[in-house]
Amino acid sequence: MRVGIVGAGAIGLLTAAYLHDKYDVTVYTRRHMQANVLNEQGLSLVKQGQQRTISIRAKLLDDELLTDDVVIVAVKQYDVAYVIERCKQLSGVETFIFLQNGMGHVRLLSHLKTRNIVLGVVEHGALKHDDRTVEHTGMGKTILSLFQGELGKAEQLLMTPIPDFPFHYADDWEEMLTKKLVVNAVINPLTALLRVKNGKLLEVNEYQTMMELLFSEIKTVLALPNEQEAWEHIVSICRKTAGNRSSMLTDIEQGRKTEIDGILGYVIGKGQERGIPTPLSQFLFYAIKGLEGRKGNG
Amino acid sequence: MRVGIVGAGAIGLLTAAYLHDKYDVTVYTRRHMQANVLNEQGLSLVKQGQQRTISIRAKLLDDELLTDDVVIVAVKQYDVAYVIERCKQLSGVETFIFLQNGMGHVRLLSHLKTRNIVLGVVEHGALKHDDRTVEHTGMGKTILSLFQGELGKAEQLLMTPIPDFPFHYADDWEEMLTKKLVVNAVINPLTALLRVKNGKLLEVNEYQTMMELLFSEIKTVLALPNEQEAWEHIVSICRKTAGNRSSMLTDIEQGRKTEIDGILGYVIGKGQERGIPTPLSQFLFYAIKGLEGRKGNG
Repeated sequence: MRVGIVGAGAIGLLTAAYLHDKYDVTVYTRRHMQANVLNEQGLSLVKQGQQRTISIRAKLLDDELLTDDVVIVAVKQYDVAYVIERCKQLSGVETFIFLQNGMGHVRLLSHLKTRNIVLGVVEHGALKHDDRTVEHTGMGKTILSLFQGELGKAEQLLMTPIPDFPFHYADDWEEMLTKKLVVNAVINPLTALLRVKNGKLLEVNEYQTMMELLFSEIKTVLALPNEQEAWEHIVSICRKTAGNRSSMLTDIEQGRKTEIDGILGYVIGKGQERGIPTPLSQFLFYAIKGLEGRKGNG
Repeated sequence: MRVGIVGAGAIGLLTAAYLHDKYDVTVYTRRHMQANVLNEQGLSLVKQGQQRTISIRAKLLDDELLTDDVVIVAVKQYDVAYVIERCKQLSGVETFIFLQNGMGHVRLLSHLKTRNIVLGVVEHGALKHDDRTVEHTGMGKTILSLFQGELGKAEQLLMTPIPDFPFHYADDWEEMLTKKLVVNAVINPLTALLRVKNGKLLEVNEYQTMMELLFSEIKTVLALPNEQEAWEHIVSICRKTAGNRSSMLTDIEQGRKTEIDGILGYVIGKGQERGIPTPLSQFLFYAIKGLEGRKGNG
């Protein structure tokens, strides 16, 4: 099976590294330089202190009409619109898989002509060190859920076990995305604002109180069916990834754009829709927007 | 007139430096070492790049029964309880002046036996460089207002002009303290959390939106009589002190306790009393409490 992976950030590189053993993988990048370095030097996977180089095929997204059987879109949520614009014409692609955080990308999917669309969430910890190097910092899983059409060849991902890189299936994509959204909405903005690793949110009592206050607002807005379970899920993710810097913290530290629009922006929108005030989400939304691009130096 | 100044932080040292020319000033410190260094090397006042050494008398607070005519208490709000405990017995002091931020100290004043009590707020910018050196970073004024009894000899402060260190009088102490409280409640926690100088709050649009959201909550809780004026006052202080780090930011950076209890703690208490929700004040209260003592290194 031919698998295309669009986006060579931490998640794209990690997925490419693990799928490479079983499938014919092509990575599509936005930048020439990254495609070159991947083709010439290979992809470097770091896991528990061990390094492995994987020879990989990389192409420039803008040069190609994608014809892989399955295309996994692993770009940030705010770049999905661009990828969909590029992939609008009918092609050989049978199934698209979108691995974004938040909910912002879902309303864009109707622009795709491809019938089979799968949504996914990634629970691995991954850290990109440079254009060709990714570290697998936390073993987790990738959960897939059918959004439209059928799974098609993407079913192979669920049927073919890969050590340390399992795929699971969830019946309800909205429930799956919401569960991840709630985790991201609580952990990401708080760690980015306080500039702490995930574990600190549990370790410092006052930070845990901040989590509880924020969760309490979000659970009401999103009308979570099982609040206790959702809270315990947040705590367990926080504990499992205690030593990690969240993606939003890393984005702020690197002066990059964050995914706040698709995360707290979505919560605020839902609040407006349902007439529920969202003071903390709004406050944090502006805090993160203000911090973006300042590299933490005020 | 004999003036005692209790507390040799930035405001205590600044006040001592300016009053020294007109009055017989004694500074009371908590630490032996600071009293020694002030007695031996004098107080160093830095203003607009110029340095001046002022020979001053310093004593240890714990050793003395205060007998000055006027005693100015310039310790942090959370140390007022200790000072009042020390000054409880009747002494030669005719008038006490309290210069704290917030409102937390007001309920403690009933423990004082002295009849004349004056409250004040300081609008100067001051930065303590070391135990004997203070920089006058922003020319402002000290506002006094009668709390109980009469001004007594403290009236001399209002009648005797000192260049660059004016005293003004306000009729309503509660209005005076509230006005300062609102400024502190908005500027201090935000600058401490975002780790920016005061001016950034106006410069970055998203930070100004955060100010507006927080002000909007506080003005409701405190039932401010003139909201527009209060907002403009915040903006003008922010503009005048644009290049300064707020005291709360400095406290957080130095790993010290902040005055958050007397500031947002007071707002939260008022909210509870009046049945008005204070989500942002609570969230910020816990953020600052969590940051205290961590020196900003997570």
